[in-house]
This record gives sequence, structure tokens and C-alpha cells, in this order.
Amino acid sequence: MKLALIGTGLIGGSAAAAWRKSGAVSHVIGFDIDADSGRAAERLGIVDVMAPSIGAAVTDADLVLLAVPVGAMRAVFNDVAAHVAAHAIITDVGSTKVSVIEAAQSALAGGTSSSGSSFSLRRFVPAHPIAGRELPGVQHADANLFRNRLLITTPTGDTHADAMGQVEMLWRSAGARVMRMDAREHDRVFAAVSHLPHLLAFALVASIASDADGERKFGFAGAGFRDFTRIAAGSAAMWRDVCVANRTALGDELRRYRAALDELQSAVDRGDADTIEHNFELASRARRRFAPMLDAE
Amino acid sequence: MKLALIGTGLIGGSAAAAWRKSGAVSHVIGFDIDADSGRAAERLGIVDVMAPSIGAAVTDADLVLLAVPVGAMRAVFNDVAAHVAAHAIITDVGSTKVSVIEAAQSALAGGTSSSGSSFSLRRFVPAHPIAGRELPGVQHADANLFRNRLLITTPTGDTHADAMGQVEMLWRSAGARVMRMDAREHDRVFAAVSHLPHLLAFALVASIASDADGERKFGFAGAGFRDFTRIAAGSAAMWRDVCVANRTALGDELRRYRAALDELQSAVDRGDADTIEHNFELASRARRRFAPMLDAE
Repeated sequence: MKLALIGTGLIGGSAAAAWRKSGAVSHVIGFDIDADSGRAAERLGIVDVMAPSIGAAVTDADLVLLAVPVGAMRAVFNDVAAHVAAHAIITDVGSTKVSVIEAAQSALAGGTSSSGSSFSLRRFVPAHPIAGRELPGVQHADANLFRNRLLITTPTGDTHADAMGQVEMLWRSAGARVMRMDAREHDRVFAAVSHLPHLLAFALVASIASDADGERKFGFAGAGFRDFTRIAAGSAAMWRDVCVANRTALGDELRRYRAALDELQSAVDRGDADTIEHNFELASRARRRFAPMLDAE
Repeated sequence: MKLALIGTGLIGGSAAAAWRKSGAVSHVIGFDIDADSGRAAERLGIVDVMAPSIGAAVTDADLVLLAVPVGAMRAVFNDVAAHVAAHAIITDVGSTKVSVIEAAQSALAGGTSSSGSSFSLRRFVPAHPIAGRELPGVQHADANLFRNRLLITTPTGDTHADAMGQVEMLWRSAGARVMRMDAREHDRVFAAVSHLPHLLAFALVASIASDADGERKFGFAGAGFRDFTRIAAGSAAMWRDVCVANRTALGDELRRYRAALDELQSAVDRGDADTIEHNFELASRARRRFAPMLDAE
């Protein structure tokens, strides 16, 4: 099977490497808007060749993987829709799903059919692998990145069962545990357990960095703060897009969290040990209760 | 040297093990308000024997280490001051330093001298090792926990240079890098890089745990959220005490952070990608710039 990899970053590069390793994919043609990233992917043998455009990359592909920041999906879908073959399956790895589905729909509505496109939503399978690494970039790609990780598909009413089956088999070949979810539900859950934590970590690191004695403070970073900086090491552009694409669900979660902080602020200000302990104990209990779930991955 | 270890938890247990390993300490007598913790410390060979009271533990000691939550320091200092020998050095591992120094001063002012105590602030050396583990408890103690870690002493005008020198040598024998700091400055810096991150992590885990579908959300925890739950795995009582003891500095840092979140909330709500990216980029740049500092420990 011939894969067109649009976006040769950490996740896209890891998926291509995993599928090549499992034998599911025999040839990879890449495209990336960042030429350096493309050259690195070629040098590492993750792609066989880089194409000069999205159109050139997808024309002969049996499978198209969109691994770009979710804010770029709409433009990429337009190019893909104009050039993709009739039999090709299209899938993505976006961290938000409603916005990506809307991007695919808009490409279809955009009149690309006038150019003779055979793009159909039936062969588009929205997906999200729950895996990552501290540092972005194809140089950190890893064929084993998805082993025992969750892969969520969020089919729409249009998604064809055959396409679903093929994409889910691909991810299983990479070692992932596949699960189906409603796109809106996916975005709501991940706003809470992924997008909000990243926003909070970026905000804390930015806040301390912009301090007059920020550098001095970094020198005293304990384990807690180091964990925050790790979370904030991800790609700023990717997470910016996630926050914008999922702004309704994320906005709700952030509002709820800010209300919790308001309560803690007033407890701290008046030295109210009971309220603080009640909150911390709730967290500790949850951590202990869900530890097997959290450590499993 | 005979050590009285008051509080046989993770940090106290690790210090006793490290000092015994380096040969600085030959005998350890322990006390803990939690009998189970004491029995575990005895079983692990971290203490030679548990004493029935703080007074009994410190009477014959050359060195007294206070390794209890900072909220308990005042009561412990009162008992120590009433029974400690004239030559003994007293030190602590509290995460806040101003409150611990005040606790020591109050024990002196508390009229314990009437009982013939020879406690003096000259032989008290406030200290804070910047080390920890995900899980509290003496069963996670480790003689190598302080290797290459920072150990901060915050001497007061009363602290005698000989006592300082002895305590700093002890920590060097455990592999720590020793540094002196003003107590107030210490509390301000650690409010930002340690106490605030822990409060934020506890608050996030508590907030999601108290959700109607909290359990479901925990099942989807990605790497970012898992880091938060790790931070929130610490002892709720210990961190409660830290937040109360350092409430002025922590309250200021929390206020500043909440103001940053207010801005991000309005950027998220209106889908303002530029403001979000500006914030995230600031964090990413700081992470990259300070990476060697952060990864060193």
C-alpha cells in the first residue's frame, strides 16, 4: 500500500514508521510545508521521497494520512480533495475531531468536484492516537510510539464501514488499542484531560518565564515544576490550533477550573487549612483509585 | 553521631539512610505520630529503634532532624526544646522556611527554659532539600535521593557558623549541592516553582475527579494529564501545611497566575489564535532555553 504522509512531524512520522514496520505500507511519499522537516524525514528513511505539493503527494496514494496542526486541516483537505484517487482512504491524527470533520465537509462543499475530484466523505476516517512525546519533530519519531496506546476513531454518518475497518486494522498493526467514540464527546473529554492541562502548563511556564527573576526561578525548579515544563515542551503551534479548534469545550473546562482556583485562592488567603486539605485529599484519593488505569499506559 | 529522627516519612527516612550510608550517623532513634510509619522504618532498618515520645527520642541525640509537615513544626519544637541536650544540633527539611524559623523562635519564647532546657537558636539550622518522589512514605525512602540535588540552608542572625558547617557537611555527605539563601527569598521562589504547581495539579485532578463522568475521563488520560496526577500524588497533609504556612507568597503567585488565565480564557472564548500562540511560544522558548538546567537534576 502506498501512503501519502501530509505533515512529516512526530506523530505522522511515527505512524509511517509503524505501518512500514508492520508491513501494512510499502511506500511513503511525503509532503511538509517545512522543507527541513521533510529533509529530515527523508534522511531518516521515514519517507521514500518528498513531493513538491500536496496534490503531487496524494495523486497515486492508496492511503492519505493528514498529520498537520488542526488549524491547517481545512486548507490541506481542499488540496487533497482536488487530487486524491477514487479508491484512496483518507485519515488524520488531529487532537480535535469536530473541527477536522467540518474541514473535510467544507472541502467537499467547496466545489472541488468541478475539478473532477472523486473525494468522498465515505472514505474519510477521523482518528486520534493518544500518544506523544515530550519533544516534537520527526527526529523523535518512533515506530513503537502507539504500542498499547489508545487510538480513537470518530466516524460520522458518512463514514463507510470498509474504510473504518481498514484504518482500524492499520492502527492495530501499530500496536494500538482501537476504540470508537462520538466526535463531540471526544472533544469534550479531551478538553478536560488533555487540552486544559496543556494550556495550564504553558500558562505557568510563560508566567514564570516573564517574571523579572524568571531565570533565577527556573534554576530552583523542583520535580513539580519540571513536570509542568515537560508538558509545555510540545509544539506551540499545534496546541494553539487545538485550543482554537476546540474552544467551546475548552472554554467550559477552563471556566470550571478557574472557579475552583477562585475558591482555593480565598482559602489560601485566609489560611483555611480544611478547605485546602479537602481539595487535595479529593485529588489524592482519585490518584490512588485510578493509579492502575494511569500507570497502565 | 546519634540521630533523633522526628517524622519517619519519605524525606526523613531518606536522610537517615543517606547519613548512615555515608558514615556520618551511627545510630538512629525515631519518633512518628503514625505508629505504622514508625514500624515500617524500623523494619526497613532506617531507624534502630522507635521512641515512645519526642522527648525520649531527642534526650541523648547529637543531631535532631525534624521531618514533619510544616504545620506540625511548632508543637514538635516545643517538645524538642524541652528535652534536647546542650550540644545537640537541630535541623529540619521543611518546604517553607519562614514559618519553621518562627516555630523555633516561639518554642524558645514559650518558657521552656523553666524546665531547664538548653535549646538555643544558635544550634538550629533551617534547611530544605529540593528532592522528592512521586509517592510519600518511608517505604519509598532512598539513600541516594539527594545525590546531585540542591540543599538550601536559610540561616538566621542567630544561627551559629559551626552548626551551619556541620549540617552542610552532612548534606554534602549525602551527595547534595549546598546553597545558602535568605528565608523570605526562599519562600517567595518556591511559592512560584513548587507550591503553586502542586496546588494547580491538586486542583485539576480534584476538579476532574468530582465531575459526573470523572472516572470515564481518567480512562482517557493522555501524557499531559498523567503528569498532573503524578504531581498530585504527594501527601495532601504535607502540601496543605505548605500552602497555609506560605500563604502570603503563594497567594500572590496564585493571583498572578489567575490573571494570566483570565486573559487566556478570553482569548480562547473569542478564538484569538495570536494571543494563545504568543503565550505558548513564550513557554516553549523558556523550556528550550532552560532545558539543560531542568534536565540536569
